[in-house]
Amino acid sequence: MSKYQHIKEEAYQANMELPKLNLVIFTFGNVSAVDRAEGVFAIKPSGVPYEDLTPDNMVIVDFAGETVEGKLRPSSDTKTHAVLYSKWDTIGGIVHTHSTYATAWAQSQRDIPIFGTTHADYNTVDIPCAPPMSDLMIQGNYEFQTGHQIINCLQEKGLNYKEVEMVLVGNHAPFTWGKTAAKAVHNSAVLEAIAHMALLTEQINPSAPRLKAALINKHYERKHGAGSYYGQ
Amino acid sequence: MSKYQHIKEEAYQANMELPKLNLVIFTFGNVSAVDRAEGVFAIKPSGVPYEDLTPDNMVIVDFAGETVEGKLRPSSDTKTHAVLYSKWDTIGGIVHTHSTYATAWAQSQRDIPIFGTTHADYNTVDIPCAPPMSDLMIQGNYEFQTGHQIINCLQEKGLNYKEVEMVLVGNHAPFTWGKTAAKAVHNSAVLEAIAHMALLTEQINPSAPRLKAALINKHYERKHGAGSYYGQ
Amino acid sequence: MSKYQHIKEEAYQANMELPKLNLVIFTFGNVSAVDRAEGVFAIKPSGVPYEDLTPDNMVIVDFAGETVEGKLRPSSDTKTHAVLYSKWDTIGGIVHTHSTYATAWAQSQRDIPIFGTTHADYNTVDIPCAPPMSDLMIQGNYEFQTGHQIINCLQEKGLNYKEVEMVLVGNHAPFTWGKTAAKAVHNSAVLEAIAHMALLTEQINPSAPRLKAALINKHYERKHGAGSYYGQ
Amino acid sequence: MSKYQHIKEEAYQANMELPKLNLVIFTFGNVSAVDRAEGVFAIKPSGVPYEDLTPDNMVIVDFAGETVEGKLRPSSDTKTHAVLYSKWDTIGGIVHTHSTYATAWAQSQRDIPIFGTTHADYNTVDIPCAPPMSDLMIQGNYEFQTGHQIINCLQEKGLNYKEVEMVLVGNHAPFTWGKTAAKAVHNSAVLEAIAHMALLTEQINPSAPRLKAALINKHYERKHGAGSYYGQ
Repeated sequence: MSKYQHIKEEAYQANMELPKLNLVIFTFGNVSAVDRAEGVFAIKPSGVPYEDLTPDNMVIVDFAGETVEGKLRPSSDTKTHAVLYSKWDTIGGIVHTHSTYATAWAQSQRDIPIFGTTHADYNTVDIPCAPPMSDLMIQGNYEFQTGHQIINCLQEKGLNYKEVEMVLVGNHAPFTWGKTAAKAVHNSAVLEAIAHMALLTEQINPSAPRLKAALINKHYERKHGAGSYYGQ
Repeated sequence: MSKYQHIKEEAYQANMELPKLNLVIFTFGNVSAVDRAEGVFAIKPSGVPYEDLTPDNMVIVDFAGETVEGKLRPSSDTKTHAVLYSKWDTIGGIVHTHSTYATAWAQSQRDIPIFGTTHADYNTVDIPCAPPMSDLMIQGNYEFQTGHQIINCLQEKGLNYKEVEMVLVGNHAPFTWGKTAAKAVHNSAVLEAIAHMALLTEQINPSAPRLKAALINKHYERKHGAGSYYGQ
Repeated sequence: MSKYQHIKEEAYQANMELPKLNLVIFTFGNVSAVDRAEGVFAIKPSGVPYEDLTPDNMVIVDFAGETVEGKLRPSSDTKTHAVLYSKWDTIGGIVHTHSTYATAWAQSQRDIPIFGTTHADYNTVDIPCAPPMSDLMIQGNYEFQTGHQIINCLQEKGLNYKEVEMVLVGNHAPFTWGKTAAKAVHNSAVLEAIAHMALLTEQINPSAPRLKAALINKHYERKHGAGSYYGQ
Repeated sequence: MSKYQHIKEEAYQANMELPKLNLVIFTFGNVSAVDRAEGVFAIKPSGVPYEDLTPDNMVIVDFAGETVEGKLRPSSDTKTHAVLYSKWDTIGGIVHTHSTYATAWAQSQRDIPIFGTTHADYNTVDIPCAPPMSDLMIQGNYEFQTGHQIINCLQEKGLNYKEVEMVLVGNHAPFTWGKTAAKAVHNSAVLEAIAHMALLTEQINPSAPRLKAALINKHYERKHGAGSYYGQ
């Protein structure tokens, strides 16, 4: 049995949630799970349908994006995952999907405005949309640069990856992360729900105001603050 | 066996309907069922996924919002339920969800206009949207004040909770109620359908008129009036 | 065994298709099937959930809307069915739903424009929307008058119920019919699909033209004309 | 056993995917699979519900559209398939559906703009919409002419059927193709997803720009280029 069996299992289970949550069709998405002690992560093999996945065909990759174990080629987005794990110390899992509503916002190149408490339960700010990458970045090491584009976007907006666990890459699609692969998947489904409701909100009331500060703070604090009283 | 077993069962069954009716994902919603004689209600525990619910992990709470029986922390919205039960004598169940279309209207801070007989079968008026709460109310006892905001909204609009069994809380999401927890869940699903159709109606015809009085009265009366002839 | 067993079975089977085709929630809809020789039809009982239906609890009603056999009260829309059967000699089944997109068009009080061949496979004209009824008609024998409103609408637009098997009742919802109850259900599902696509078409291109005459005729003729070559 | 058993099986399997992928209701669609050596293709029989299909009731047709084997009448769109197989040497399967979003774009008579990398993973250009056919073409050999309309559309836009495997026929609906029937079905599902996201993108940002050239090339090349690194 592989010494990476635990993250292969974790990545496998998390990948299998994507079609169940209607976040992907065919092979449109990937999840990884990291082992910080070993400095590697397990990720979906490229282009393999979800029904053919097993824990054993997850690919083990290091933070430079090189395969450490596994017979299949890893996801084409592997280097983006590698960069995020390498720069952000505390995340345990990463998800990339082309889910319908979040991708539409990414294609629109707009941040998703914070319109309600569903959003505020997860973020105190608009969900950031990184601008499309420069031609130089695209023509270079593209997936590697995608990771840097995400990191730069949060930095320029003064956001902390420990608090904001989701981003749109302009013209492309969403990435989410979290303490575990399962939490990163959870965040992808929440992002899709928020993206859908934000579009509808603007359709119902084109001048709908952003959520007021008192509600933003209250909802985030009751779920994430020092005196939080949500959950067990 | 608990002396509250009957409301634990009722609350459990009603909570389990929410994901089946596509009104919630993950833990986004809660249902309670009241025992008027005992002055308590059973409510979903906070942050527990629906697949892990059992009748036994429902939490028994009194009308001041204090836990009477149960090992888990009750829903973070418990005090809102407590206020509504304490002020409204005849309701037997309450539901809170973040269902997609009803929440989008709440985020838009608009009442849902009465456009058709589907709406009139349930309400003779626009579905009210309570304004977002004042900063003072939010920073105080938030969930308790949410209950008061709902009660005030109906009062100011001259509406009777026995006839209008659904409300939107501005920037937040819907609450519904009814004679039983099952009826309150039914109302949540109906509200979601009405919210969806109202948005589509405005998209198809931005100057669609509200339903005329004769149709409003006819449909409500045939379902709820003295000479009603709907149902068995 | 009832002498009406065959239409009870037919009505039962057709009613059970409505939730499977996502055309109804709860008790929002009803189907009937007629026996022309006996001058009666079988219809869903009022307010009974689909999961509780059986062939035996279908109600047998004559063309005056009076119950001939059955312990339960028939659908509240029974008199509308009775009028249509009595005026239109060749129809064998009728369906009423509050399906989402068709109902939104009814609430918008607009005919559904013919934008494509999907529509033309079923109708050569816009799907008619009957105007809301006069207050006098509503306050009188409402469901009976609804039937007359439908008949008048087709007459005024010069349409033949043998060719146009679907209508919207303004501010209310769709009715469809056909040679059998199953065909009437089929028409309800097709209407819902056409209603959805017509809304999207206007959103994508607000000045989308109606389908040209040559295509309307070609598609309708290949499916319904003397030289039809669709189906077996 | 038929000498065409392999394409009957292939066409049957591919047809059965259409309802599973929510691309058709009732009999709204058809798939064919070709045997180049024999100069024939297997196609769905006309108007037969998917649940009644078997490999054996697929119809074998030659490139002139004449039935070679089979008791049932072939799909009414058979001559369109025949023309495409006869003109385009390397395609192995063809799909026609009336899927909701792709059909709405066809009804709108607009090409689908390339807004993101999901689109670029499949095409470097807007998805073409052929203009509605001339009255002469419609009144003549309609389905045969539909095939020519598709071929002319690609030719006039300078597109190669080996690279662009999907088209909208104005006022009608989409056609897709591929090296196998399964790949053609895959393309139909992808087209539907792209069509949905493009509509949402324009709703979120009416002035959303088309995808920049560097991203178009990068995404297409990494999946289809000489140095492709997507898949196994």
